[in-house]
Amino acid sequence: MIVVVHAHPYPAHSRGVKALLGAIRDLPDLQVRSLYEMYPDFDIDAAAERKAMEEASAIVFLHPLYWYTVPALLKHWIDTVPIRGWAYGEGGAALRDKACLWAVTTGGDEQAYSAAGRHGHPMATFTPVMEQTAKFCGMEWQEPFIVHAAHQKSDAEMAAVASRFRDRLLEIAG
Amino acid sequence: MIVVVHAHPYPAHSRGVKALLGAIRDLPDLQVRSLYEMYPDFDIDAAAERKAMEEASAIVFLHPLYWYTVPALLKHWIDTVPIRGWAYGEGGAALRDKACLWAVTTGGDEQAYSAAGRHGHPMATFTPVMEQTAKFCGMEWQEPFIVHAAHQKSDAEMAAVASRFRDRLLEIAG
Repeated sequence: MIVVVHAHPYPAHSRGVKALLGAIRDLPDLQVRSLYEMYPDFDIDAAAERKAMEEASAIVFLHPLYWYTVPALLKHWIDTVPIRGWAYGEGGAALRDKACLWAVTTGGDEQAYSAAGRHGHPMATFTPVMEQTAKFCGMEWQEPFIVHAAHQKSDAEMAAVASRFRDRLLEIAG
Repeated sequence: MIVVVHAHPYPAHSRGVKALLGAIRDLPDLQVRSLYEMYPDFDIDAAAERKAMEEASAIVFLHPLYWYTVPALLKHWIDTVPIRGWAYGEGGAALRDKACLWAVTTGGDEQAYSAAGRHGHPMATFTPVMEQTAKFCGMEWQEPFIVHAAHQKSDAEMAAVASRFRDRLLEIAG
């Protein structure tokens, strides 16, 4: 089973994330956990989340980039779900060898993510926080799926990106 | 005025952050905003936070490193306080030219933060997320104040570190 941990504080304002989600919703053996719908008050049910993760063979984190990393509720999920003795440390192997795909949309275009751009760095500079989090839990880090400037794309362009996302998930599902 | 944005989910378990805070509390013209005490339910008063930031000449983010970046409540603060038209974009200059000091404690020692260590990278690899956030808002990024493995330090070592932290703040206060 692929579990998609979806975090968008303002789903109505979402173009990229919504399109990506729309392209995969019908895949068999897939579960979407929309954190901002499930836990609007930040009261994450960590036990339920852990149970869902245990059943997954792959975990996809799908969200817009907020200040170069995950939105706060997903950070709260990361702070509370993968604990010592479950995700790492003695007896902590619940996430080991599961595939981890980081699927991120950004407001800025690709040029904005460069040394000369308004974000001062390529996206790869901001990747280690998530990548090392996954690796620390023994997960198999996948090449991230990054969508820049979704709001500037035509419908056809966005559909093509969403289709590539679906293919990536099918590939990961094996 | 220096404003310290302090974020520790479990202050009772804090050694490093508590010592750093203890060393600066009596400084004149300093305000400490302890987010987990003020907003235990994540209901940040963004207007009050913005007002406090406007009165600051320097902002210090003081927290333990959680999964290579800030704890969730501080991420929620970052997601909600510095908005477009206030912190950036047209008319957004509220934080411009203010000093920004990132003061972070880590559980791991310095060796853990290296290519061969358990965190796979030096601390500098994880810095750009915060640094670029500050710079995007026009703040003057300071050399971060990093304290590794506070729980392994002797009382005398911790006191020396805390004293250096106090000196850094006096320097920033000018």
